[in-house]
Amino acid sequence: MSVERTLHHFPLDPASRQVRLVLGEKRLPFTDVQVRYWERPKELTALNPSGLTPVLVETRGEAQLVLCESRAILDHLEESAPEPALLGREPAERAEARRLLQWFDRKFEFEAGGYILHEKMEKRLLGLGAPELANLRQGREGLKNHLFYIDKLLQDREWLAGKRLSLADFAAAAHLSVIDYFGDVPWADFPAVKTWYMKLKSRPCFRPLLLDRWPGLTPAKQYDDLDF
Amino acid sequence: MSVERTLHHFPLDPASRQVRLVLGEKRLPFTDVQVRYWERPKELTALNPSGLTPVLVETRGEAQLVLCESRAILDHLEESAPEPALLGREPAERAEARRLLQWFDRKFEFEAGGYILHEKMEKRLLGLGAPELANLRQGREGLKNHLFYIDKLLQDREWLAGKRLSLADFAAAAHLSVIDYFGDVPWADFPAVKTWYMKLKSRPCFRPLLLDRWPGLTPAKQYDDLDF
Repeated sequence: MSVERTLHHFPLDPASRQVRLVLGEKRLPFTDVQVRYWERPKELTALNPSGLTPVLVETRGEAQLVLCESRAILDHLEESAPEPALLGREPAERAEARRLLQWFDRKFEFEAGGYILHEKMEKRLLGLGAPELANLRQGREGLKNHLFYIDKLLQDREWLAGKRLSLADFAAAAHLSVIDYFGDVPWADFPAVKTWYMKLKSRPCFRPLLLDRWPGLTPAKQYDDLDF
Repeated sequence: MSVERTLHHFPLDPASRQVRLVLGEKRLPFTDVQVRYWERPKELTALNPSGLTPVLVETRGEAQLVLCESRAILDHLEESAPEPALLGREPAERAEARRLLQWFDRKFEFEAGGYILHEKMEKRLLGLGAPELANLRQGREGLKNHLFYIDKLLQDREWLAGKRLSLADFAAAAHLSVIDYFGDVPWADFPAVKTWYMKLKSRPCFRPLLLDRWPGLTPAKQYDDLDF
């Protein structure tokens, strides 16, 4: 039976972007429902009690499967649509990809992304006034440390978790891409990271993200430029 | 070939406890290395660049597999030692267990556990002085909301993710058990949650956790009492 997919997401949410990239990479078409999660819409809370995006709803005839939270969705897609494999086949590859998923979703978000997106995005969406410069500085410092780390990983790997493109690359790219929307990634200082990101940015799965525009939030000039 | 396992962990770390419970439940013996992660020991950073516990090292003859971060370890154990299954077999069961894993590891930790453990445990370990009462209050308020939510789940389920014991139960129990060490769980107000926790606490996998004692941190009186 054919599956119909609906993704409830916010275009500039890094967790939502991971799922959009993976759906795209696996060539799984989906209907797109954009959610203003910060307004706590009832439809979203009814699907996901945490009130967070992304939520993927899969419909097979009368049966509906509701998948909440990015990691649960990514794991499910890997199990139900295993090609192309994005988690590796060997235990060591899978362990490394999963280590990095946690790295980006917790450590990167806590030390870098969280600060920058709160100041530049959430405050705008919530009408909380101008960015706090000290927080922005802290986030940019954290970001630099993480770019150094990505650079170090890429010194002896083609992709972040090893020889193969994996969920780790999509997680990192999703987080970086939102910061890049606001023009805050110092690409010029990290040429190896830039080359890696250009490869990802040129993939068809990335295109919809480059077309994202949110009212009142103008993207940086090079955001959708493949040759930035 | 037989596998030797070594777990690098901190006894009062909820993420480490999830892994210990699951290793116990799957009857996988392991050597226990206790780590004072807050002192950033070099051996730990060499294994896991994030410097965080838990890290599981599996040795098969000459080959070594290093697994970092709780979720990566739990996923690997589920794949390599599938019995008893702790993630369910149906996509809907798996999705629900995974949703709740994220719930407890992020939302619970952010809204409840993080405050309480920072004030009552980390400050002691780091010599940062007395707990801030406002933070403790905030954590206890968050904890109450989460206990209400667990209670609601248990109204029509035997275990948190459904009919079967799953990783969601071990995640929730691991987080609560550390708070319980400090005597901060208001069990009497949540009888259904207490009954569910008693069932878990009586399992053999739980026993080692009840024996944990950390110098300078005395557990609450009922901490190791099965009939609390």
